[in-house]
Amino acid sequence: MASDFRLKEQLPELTEQIVSTYTSDDSINHLGHCPLPSYTAVVDILLDLKDILYPGYKRHTNLHAGNIRYHVGGLIDSLHDQLTTQIARALRHEHRVLQNHKDCETDIDFEAKGQAMAIEMLKRIVKLREMLATDVQAAHDGDPACQTTDEVVFCYPGFEAITVYRIAHELVQLNVPFIPRMMTEWAHKETGIDIHPGATIGEYFFIDHGTGVVIGETCHIGKHVKLYQGVTLGALSFPTDADGQLIRGQKRHPTIEDEVVVYANATILGGRTVIGRESVIGSSVWITRSVSPGTTVVLEKPQLKVRGSDEPADELRPEVNYQI
Amino acid sequence: MASDFRLKEQLPELTEQIVSTYTSDDSINHLGHCPLPSYTAVVDILLDLKDILYPGYKRHTNLHAGNIRYHVGGLIDSLHDQLTTQIARALRHEHRVLQNHKDCETDIDFEAKGQAMAIEMLKRIVKLREMLATDVQAAHDGDPACQTTDEVVFCYPGFEAITVYRIAHELVQLNVPFIPRMMTEWAHKETGIDIHPGATIGEYFFIDHGTGVVIGETCHIGKHVKLYQGVTLGALSFPTDADGQLIRGQKRHPTIEDEVVVYANATILGGRTVIGRESVIGSSVWITRSVSPGTTVVLEKPQLKVRGSDEPADELRPEVNYQI
Amino acid sequence: MASDFRLKEQLPELTEQIVSTYTSDDSINHLGHCPLPSYTAVVDILLDLKDILYPGYKRHTNLHAGNIRYHVGGLIDSLHDQLTTQIARALRHEHRVLQNHKDCETDIDFEAKGQAMAIEMLKRIVKLREMLATDVQAAHDGDPACQTTDEVVFCYPGFEAITVYRIAHELVQLNVPFIPRMMTEWAHKETGIDIHPGATIGEYFFIDHGTGVVIGETCHIGKHVKLYQGVTLGALSFPTDADGQLIRGQKRHPTIEDEVVVYANATILGGRTVIGRESVIGSSVWITRSVSPGTTVVLEKPQLKVRGSDEPADELRPEVNYQI
Amino acid sequence: MASDFRLKEQLPELTEQIVSTYTSDDSINHLGHCPLPSYTAVVDILLDLKDILYPGYKRHTNLHAGNIRYHVGGLIDSLHDQLTTQIARALRHEHRVLQNHKDCETDIDFEAKGQAMAIEMLKRIVKLREMLATDVQAAHDGDPACQTTDEVVFCYPGFEAITVYRIAHELVQLNVPFIPRMMTEWAHKETGIDIHPGATIGEYFFIDHGTGVVIGETCHIGKHVKLYQGVTLGALSFPTDADGQLIRGQKRHPTIEDEVVVYANATILGGRTVIGRESVIGSSVWITRSVSPGTTVVLEKPQLKVRGSDEPADELRPEVNYQI
Amino acid sequence: MASDFRLKEQLPELTEQIVSTYTSDDSINHLGHCPLPSYTAVVDILLDLKDILYPGYKRHTNLHAGNIRYHVGGLIDSLHDQLTTQIARALRHEHRVLQNHKDCETDIDFEAKGQAMAIEMLKRIVKLREMLATDVQAAHDGDPACQTTDEVVFCYPGFEAITVYRIAHELVQLNVPFIPRMMTEWAHKETGIDIHPGATIGEYFFIDHGTGVVIGETCHIGKHVKLYQGVTLGALSFPTDADGQLIRGQKRHPTIEDEVVVYANATILGGRTVIGRESVIGSSVWITRSVSPGTTVVLEKPQLKVRGSDEPADELRPEVNYQI
Amino acid sequence: MASDFRLKEQLPELTEQIVSTYTSDDSINHLGHCPLPSYTAVVDILLDLKDILYPGYKRHTNLHAGNIRYHVGGLIDSLHDQLTTQIARALRHEHRVLQNHKDCETDIDFEAKGQAMAIEMLKRIVKLREMLATDVQAAHDGDPACQTTDEVVFCYPGFEAITVYRIAHELVQLNVPFIPRMMTEWAHKETGIDIHPGATIGEYFFIDHGTGVVIGETCHIGKHVKLYQGVTLGALSFPTDADGQLIRGQKRHPTIEDEVVVYANATILGGRTVIGRESVIGSSVWITRSVSPGTTVVLEKPQLKVRGSDEPADELRPEVNYQI
Repeated sequence: MASDFRLKEQLPELTEQIVSTYTSDDSINHLGHCPLPSYTAVVDILLDLKDILYPGYKRHTNLHAGNIRYHVGGLIDSLHDQLTTQIARALRHEHRVLQNHKDCETDIDFEAKGQAMAIEMLKRIVKLREMLATDVQAAHDGDPACQTTDEVVFCYPGFEAITVYRIAHELVQLNVPFIPRMMTEWAHKETGIDIHPGATIGEYFFIDHGTGVVIGETCHIGKHVKLYQGVTLGALSFPTDADGQLIRGQKRHPTIEDEVVVYANATILGGRTVIGRESVIGSSVWITRSVSPGTTVVLEKPQLKVRGSDEPADELRPEVNYQI
Repeated sequence: MASDFRLKEQLPELTEQIVSTYTSDDSINHLGHCPLPSYTAVVDILLDLKDILYPGYKRHTNLHAGNIRYHVGGLIDSLHDQLTTQIARALRHEHRVLQNHKDCETDIDFEAKGQAMAIEMLKRIVKLREMLATDVQAAHDGDPACQTTDEVVFCYPGFEAITVYRIAHELVQLNVPFIPRMMTEWAHKETGIDIHPGATIGEYFFIDHGTGVVIGETCHIGKHVKLYQGVTLGALSFPTDADGQLIRGQKRHPTIEDEVVVYANATILGGRTVIGRESVIGSSVWITRSVSPGTTVVLEKPQLKVRGSDEPADELRPEVNYQI
Repeated sequence: MASDFRLKEQLPELTEQIVSTYTSDDSINHLGHCPLPSYTAVVDILLDLKDILYPGYKRHTNLHAGNIRYHVGGLIDSLHDQLTTQIARALRHEHRVLQNHKDCETDIDFEAKGQAMAIEMLKRIVKLREMLATDVQAAHDGDPACQTTDEVVFCYPGFEAITVYRIAHELVQLNVPFIPRMMTEWAHKETGIDIHPGATIGEYFFIDHGTGVVIGETCHIGKHVKLYQGVTLGALSFPTDADGQLIRGQKRHPTIEDEVVVYANATILGGRTVIGRESVIGSSVWITRSVSPGTTVVLEKPQLKVRGSDEPADELRPEVNYQI
Repeated sequence: MASDFRLKEQLPELTEQIVSTYTSDDSINHLGHCPLPSYTAVVDILLDLKDILYPGYKRHTNLHAGNIRYHVGGLIDSLHDQLTTQIARALRHEHRVLQNHKDCETDIDFEAKGQAMAIEMLKRIVKLREMLATDVQAAHDGDPACQTTDEVVFCYPGFEAITVYRIAHELVQLNVPFIPRMMTEWAHKETGIDIHPGATIGEYFFIDHGTGVVIGETCHIGKHVKLYQGVTLGALSFPTDADGQLIRGQKRHPTIEDEVVVYANATILGGRTVIGRESVIGSSVWITRSVSPGTTVVLEKPQLKVRGSDEPADELRPEVNYQI
Repeated sequence: MASDFRLKEQLPELTEQIVSTYTSDDSINHLGHCPLPSYTAVVDILLDLKDILYPGYKRHTNLHAGNIRYHVGGLIDSLHDQLTTQIARALRHEHRVLQNHKDCETDIDFEAKGQAMAIEMLKRIVKLREMLATDVQAAHDGDPACQTTDEVVFCYPGFEAITVYRIAHELVQLNVPFIPRMMTEWAHKETGIDIHPGATIGEYFFIDHGTGVVIGETCHIGKHVKLYQGVTLGALSFPTDADGQLIRGQKRHPTIEDEVVVYANATILGGRTVIGRESVIGSSVWITRSVSPGTTVVLEKPQLKVRGSDEPADELRPEVNYQI
Repeated sequence: MASDFRLKEQLPELTEQIVSTYTSDDSINHLGHCPLPSYTAVVDILLDLKDILYPGYKRHTNLHAGNIRYHVGGLIDSLHDQLTTQIARALRHEHRVLQNHKDCETDIDFEAKGQAMAIEMLKRIVKLREMLATDVQAAHDGDPACQTTDEVVFCYPGFEAITVYRIAHELVQLNVPFIPRMMTEWAHKETGIDIHPGATIGEYFFIDHGTGVVIGETCHIGKHVKLYQGVTLGALSFPTDADGQLIRGQKRHPTIEDEVVVYANATILGGRTVIGRESVIGSSVWITRSVSPGTTVVLEKPQLKVRGSDEPADELRPEVNYQI
């Protein structure tokens, strides 16, 4: 028993029908001779950069003083070429979009622009490593289950997401289009943590567990900030213009000052919301306005309904000595 | 220093012990000559379908008018064979389960049935593309951080999850067993968004960020609906029959009418719950009963406890001009 | 138009700058001749173990009585070698960390220790299978959308996370360092479910949907417990010692007794918190103290603000006949 | 500078032109739903068989008493399936050719026939190993540069070619079409030794160096025969029938009796030519008729022309004490 | 016991020593920004071309009327790009060599030239197929062991070598440098048959067995010619100019007219040597001058020395009725 | 129609039968815990060494001054480890063979010996490159069809074989067992040229075409020697001792002095045979004794039999002005 080969005869017709829907005003095809950045290549770039940022972990476990120079040099050389190509694709595509999808532009040397951006990106690796070393330290200091900084580099999803964000954020600052977002969405997929590459985040940043964390594009986050899983730093309503179109580019997300801790599933919304330094936002708290420095905000007396137990519902309120 | 090879002599005995536990009434082995659908093949089918739905993104970035026909035709041909094989496996397995795990059925031509379903599935691609184009548009219109529809196709996890759901839902409608769920669980793994393939969802659907979203099997979702991360459209308690067995197949999940927005971490439960059209459900709201059309529901006056700050707790309530 | 090769001449200098930052007191490099466990190898070990635990699913779909012995025997042989190598690496690294990063220890036969642990781990597979069979049953019995136990093994992310946890937990009990955490973080990435390998969890455990679930290191979970997505079993504040250092190793996470159900997005915090047997914790509930056995705790009367609708806000409170 | 994409517009037309040449009476296409045996699969079968014939060499170097059973069992199981499929394809194709290229035959169960042949082939492995062990011994005994029998298995091309020949010859005896020739041509490519699978060759066979050796379809070779590189055991002229068509199936190649040695580049032609036992055929000798047992045949007095040297050409004749 | 890591410290010094030998006047390095054609890419081009020339064999065994167009179209599109790139590399490299290794030329658009040549090559595929169909027929008609033309395409090394030669020869005619020779040397490696791509060979060409065949650059071979293994169509001495440099570009190899047969290991040398039509050159014959049409040339009365046999040496001469 | 699964039930029994033949006195299995060198690893070593010897060809075509150091350094580091491991395996195996197959020796540190040999081998790369540069020059100067030295490195099989021989010969001089032969047999397979790694060969060595060339273990070849395809530098009869065992280790192959040319298919045999400097050995000549310096040896007056032509057979003798 097998499939009937005569039924396959209708497949070419099916193909024609599908192909006929790939028209130029179709928003979900990208045909033509100006290829988009390659998602696979962008992910490879990330993996290569991580090999340089954290030598000896993950992909290559036999690095030592005698070979590390060769390892890094080879990666830098390859990254130069890959970044140049992909950034050039992104720039060319952005140009077309801005010019309203005209033909592929051949008068502009996007490769030269891409190369300049690629080299600048590579120059920032040393500074990136300094920044990321503070994040590792923050993770180690902030998690009682953590025994060595090696563990953080090895398997903390929060650190993974922050690493990718910091890489992507450098590209945002270099005005590289598309690719930063591709990077952070890859990290989102890997970790469940969604940090927009446009956000501004200070050193010693730590996200524990992290699944469900969302950090919006226009957030400002200070130093020594700690977030737990499920925290949303989001927008309130989006203003629209006279035509009902969303107004893009405003500060829509909150500011978190230095040394703030935000516990699991807390939601902080709004571009004018400022959480003052050294504040603590309790688990599941929902805030849409500013909080003065040094404030602790927790859910108070959740109204719970209890059945089938003799103890009064009141007893289910948070302990008096609750200390976050 | 190396491992002692004599200690390895006990491994064959270990193997025997393990193999002896693979008995016919063991729920966690699947031995025999009726193979299950291959998870890897099902994922490959999804990737191939996505290449047809969104030509020029992801895996193949050099498609143009001169080669697109060949690209699609080759994929359709291959998909026909792969779908036929995997659907036949799923049908044969379902038959065995329904017949209470008898021997492998050889009198029924599951391949012929599989082929018919496979071809029908391929015929629906054109309609699927129309539907998915509305979802792309909804994402672009609903996210101020989105600059082009290309970004949506490229890296929006919500759109990824919706794509897989819509594919899987077509298979559900064709009565293909097992495979739809394998597909949406793959998307769940990739995006953190868990949409049951049995759910019914209208056009222009948008999920932003998306991690933690759960959409149950019997949900009905209208057109132009927008969900944020952490939204649960779930069931209340499950009714059981006289024997304490769960009663399966009832409508257990809510109905969301057209143009509803549900903000982050809101929870809407129950099969009789209907969120009326153009309603807005605020962030972290928890609802188990119906809401009339045009209603805005937000958390009011969260009881927060504030310490270490001079401002009164009352000030922490939502701003008066809060607009979602 | 292409990149200018002369600009590449600065890359070797860049390489030197980066390499010069890889110093011995740098927390984010691991150079030297004592390699860390290989992440890739650890993932391969997990995949091989899953092939033995659930033969006939996933990677190999043609197993039957005539070849299963060979399949398992080959995997056991390979796992012996892989586990020995990776555990030895982990032990050697732990030794260095405990000895404060001295040179690579060569006087201790970590391979012999690794082999003993590897063989012991393999001996526990039979018992693991018994335990996991109860988890499959729990998933089937607890999900009305589930038709066969095959589906659970195939695509339930909760079951995936529990499988990896149970494997990693055995390694924790054997005092294998680092590797258990690498395993559960891999599962975290795959499923969005973060179970610390040190947690204690009884049989018939079920996590539905699961994205965002966090189960802390010192949790004690009884038998027949069911969790939904977004549930946090976490810590309250962490006590610090006189130097402000976190005190590690205390029970910081709650105890969940037998037959408890915790609905979506509930948060249970604190090492002294005990949820008594047969209790039900409702969706989005936030608890930091103990609950007697048989208690049902739900959100009562959420204060919602409703606009644009004629019905009173009060009507939005949970239905009277709400039954979880 | 890059290629001009407008020039690519002529490619679809080119494709059409090429495809239009794939007609049914075209001898160099094979289109339709009866696939030929897969060359790749046939090579994989050879590699798997060699792993069983010579365990511990080549692909798997860590085999030992504790895992060899699993290794072999897994290969046998896989070989059963692969051989069955490929033999069935070969039988179906032969049937079509014999029936003069009619449609694909579906009334005959070629899979059942293929399976029977596959199992019979696997049953012959033990006997094949006995035969091949004699060949290894012959290589070791016949080559002064050979130190261990391991070297023979590892890297002697003559032994490689003989191994493949002996496998293919068993398939010839089972009346498997096409595949034996595919196998020996693969060996031909690997070693430069072309042994027709139809030839009959006794035990203790050794080919040294081997490049250029040709052994025709109807050769009969006895035991303990040794050949060197470049030896041809070929046909004289081919008789044709009244229509000028070659008469196929006659004995066209020589018979080599036991314990004969044939040195490099010797040529022995003709179906009635018999080289009697214990004969020695010298290097570069060219023979088209029979030789009695015990005969040594060498080139005598090659007429050489010598210039630029004082010594007489006569001195260039073979040494008197020449002993092969 | 393991290697001593301190000894590895000398490796960087070793690296420096090796790298210091890569100087610009070193004939065995190719460093710089003008890459050579990629050997791997050239082989891929060959494999793709063979898939088009002989659809349904080798790599793709499931081609049929419903998918062949897509298969070929995809290959043609990809071949266009691959050929363009590799030919451009070859042209640029040739330019540098002719200009005596100056810097990489950037003023000439080698890609445009490469594209023109690539498209012209693709246009010749139809004619190539016609030519190769005659070669298949010749193999079938010339080998009594051959049952179907399928076998020829599948596994005849002579046909493989001729196929590659005919492809490469087209490129020679298009003045593509380097690549044709890379192609025929690949075929040489695969088959032991070395046909220079510059040779001229008519239709219905057949090489049987083939190992060791050498066909020189300036050979002219007519139609219906058949060669056996080990045949050399080579040069006599090479004339040198006044400086002792080889004079390149002269006709140095023989002419073989139509319907000639050359048996195994025959050697035909010299640019002025012409083998007249319908001649037969016997096995192991060595010829350096012309032969009239219709001539049969065989070794006569080889002087053999026979020992240990009673029959006279004379009897070893070729049979009277010897017919080649 | 498919294979009958019940017939597969006999496969485990078949497996047992095969495994039972793997006994300790069986010459064609290698079971146990002392693995042989890995053929795949040895080939990888060759490919890596060739990347260092000829940078910029074959596998890596984008090497330039800015990355070559990293490329080579990475390869050297990896080669150190690979060579150490494989040489240690070879030494351990040789030890067992010499000790008559006792258990695996664990008291000797073969890894330390292997490492010393590996480093010594790497130190010889610079000298190897000097030697091989002379071979490239010889190929270019000796082949009128050769336009640049690049072609030689790229695709001349003779140069490929010489490269591998020179690498393997260095290992022979370091007393590395087994591996040199594995290397040259790989080259034999690739090129049809069989050079024993024990042979001694001077600089400026060239083999043209090369298929079928055999160079024996005890050959001595001077400088500026050129060989053509099919040349055998072989042994005469092998002396045996009183027990009839081959006496191994004597000089059995000829000596070829400087600036000798040997044309296609010539055969030179015997350990005492010396071809004096600047001699020329003609095509197909067969020599078993020494030739004075400056001698040209060609086939004279081959006795040919001509039929069907009017011209006298005598005319077929070599031209008077024949000059090799």
